[in-house]
Amino acid sequence: MTRGGIAGGEQTGADSIVVSGGYEDDEDYGDLIVYTGQGGNDPSTGRQIADQQLTLRNAGLMKSRLEGLPVRVIRGSHEGSAYAPETGLRYDGLYYVEDADHVVGRSGFRIWRFTLRRQDVAAPPWGSTAVTPRLPPEVKQVTVLRVIRNTATAREVKEIYDRCQICELRRDTPAGPYAEGAHIPLGAPHRGPDTLDNLLCLCPNHHLPFDVGAITIADDMTLIGTFGKLRTVPKHPINVEYVRYHRAHYAPTA
Amino acid sequence: MTRGGIAGGEQTGADSIVVSGGYEDDEDYGDLIVYTGQGGNDPSTGRQIADQQLTLRNAGLMKSRLEGLPVRVIRGSHEGSAYAPETGLRYDGLYYVEDADHVVGRSGFRIWRFTLRRQDVAAPPWGSTAVTPRLPPEVKQVTVLRVIRNTATAREVKEIYDRCQICELRRDTPAGPYAEGAHIPLGAPHRGPDTLDNLLCLCPNHHLPFDVGAITIADDMTLIGTFGKLRTVPKHPINVEYVRYHRAHYAPTA
Repeated sequence: MTRGGIAGGEQTGADSIVVSGGYEDDEDYGDLIVYTGQGGNDPSTGRQIADQQLTLRNAGLMKSRLEGLPVRVIRGSHEGSAYAPETGLRYDGLYYVEDADHVVGRSGFRIWRFTLRRQDVAAPPWGSTAVTPRLPPEVKQVTVLRVIRNTATAREVKEIYDRCQICELRRDTPAGPYAEGAHIPLGAPHRGPDTLDNLLCLCPNHHLPFDVGAITIADDMTLIGTFGKLRTVPKHPINVEYVRYHRAHYAPTA
Repeated sequence: MTRGGIAGGEQTGADSIVVSGGYEDDEDYGDLIVYTGQGGNDPSTGRQIADQQLTLRNAGLMKSRLEGLPVRVIRGSHEGSAYAPETGLRYDGLYYVEDADHVVGRSGFRIWRFTLRRQDVAAPPWGSTAVTPRLPPEVKQVTVLRVIRNTATAREVKEIYDRCQICELRRDTPAGPYAEGAHIPLGAPHRGPDTLDNLLCLCPNHHLPFDVGAITIADDMTLIGTFGKLRTVPKHPINVEYVRYHRAHYAPTA
């Protein structure tokens, strides 16, 4: 069978997947799913006859991983899963791709493998107490070191620049360049807004020191705390009011 | 009054805070709390008489922000809060510090201000439907771009190195050097374990390309995808088996 379950493409990320037991390499732990990619199989027999490539919808899932885009998970009823609905299809909420690697599958050809973790405000439909989590023992409870959030405006500023406005280096990955949208004063709860004139495009190594005030910006866009000047383009004017707020409220105090 | 609510110090992060209405600048939105720091006030009158410093327990909250350490929130009953218990103290779960800045408070002196967001597996004790969220309108729903997790072993590898094992640069912030623990093959669901011989200490800019296979490591620790060799120390031997797995399963395919 073809992997019709993966919707969405290389440019936009994968919108949704269907978990219905069609692929023998899939693993379902409820909140955590190991989902094999599409391609390389004979549509008439369903057997793997070639290596899967990181193209088309597999590239879409890689893009979702890189951009932190949510993937809607739909489970279809099938045997052998404690998390599948009894009949039909069920929408099970938003998951995020937290890992992607490739292995040689049972048929001897390469398959791509995506690990998705559920992060949804709604409780899981299978009930949190009904099923004992079957996570492998080595998956331990960990704390979150850092959460980098994404907004539509952040994606916009990343489209204007494909690189960091501080170091001007482009960070390439197999799914395209990587950068982060950084609010000048952070949005929550009532400081800077989520608007383009309050956003920078930064690499991870400059996002963090900017967030904690180790780097600030002068009115003329000269950088304080590191060398040089913020790179800007005419279609992305930065509101100097936010730069001043950031300097006044985030820079280290005497 | 003194800010007895902040437990924990500069070295370990702040273990817990008490929200009990004692500080007029505190703001409580349930899942989101804006919490003012401690210090600079006259214990006998409770009035602010000096600037707060980023030392002691304020530095602890900054450390919690930087290290992604959870802060236990305890609410005490007080007037004017829809989220406080009717009587006594109540444990309200784990929050993470997502922003820290300083402002001039009502008394004309500088106060530190910490924004904490709830991330707990348990439902909030005030009931998710009982109270309409009072978040300011500019706080929009955003997607997660990247979650960097922390384990005890990750903290261990960061103590061995205070810098990135790839670029060897130390990333300083007001709360000390910043680095991330990177599993060679990611831990979930059943690849590499959360052990020291499967962990690297990397800066954010090298963590991401390593996670997506744009950088891999040869058996002799030479870097593939960038220049140079992985910096190692004798007390941190890396298991070459994990390096090989990472190379075989994460590197781009032909």
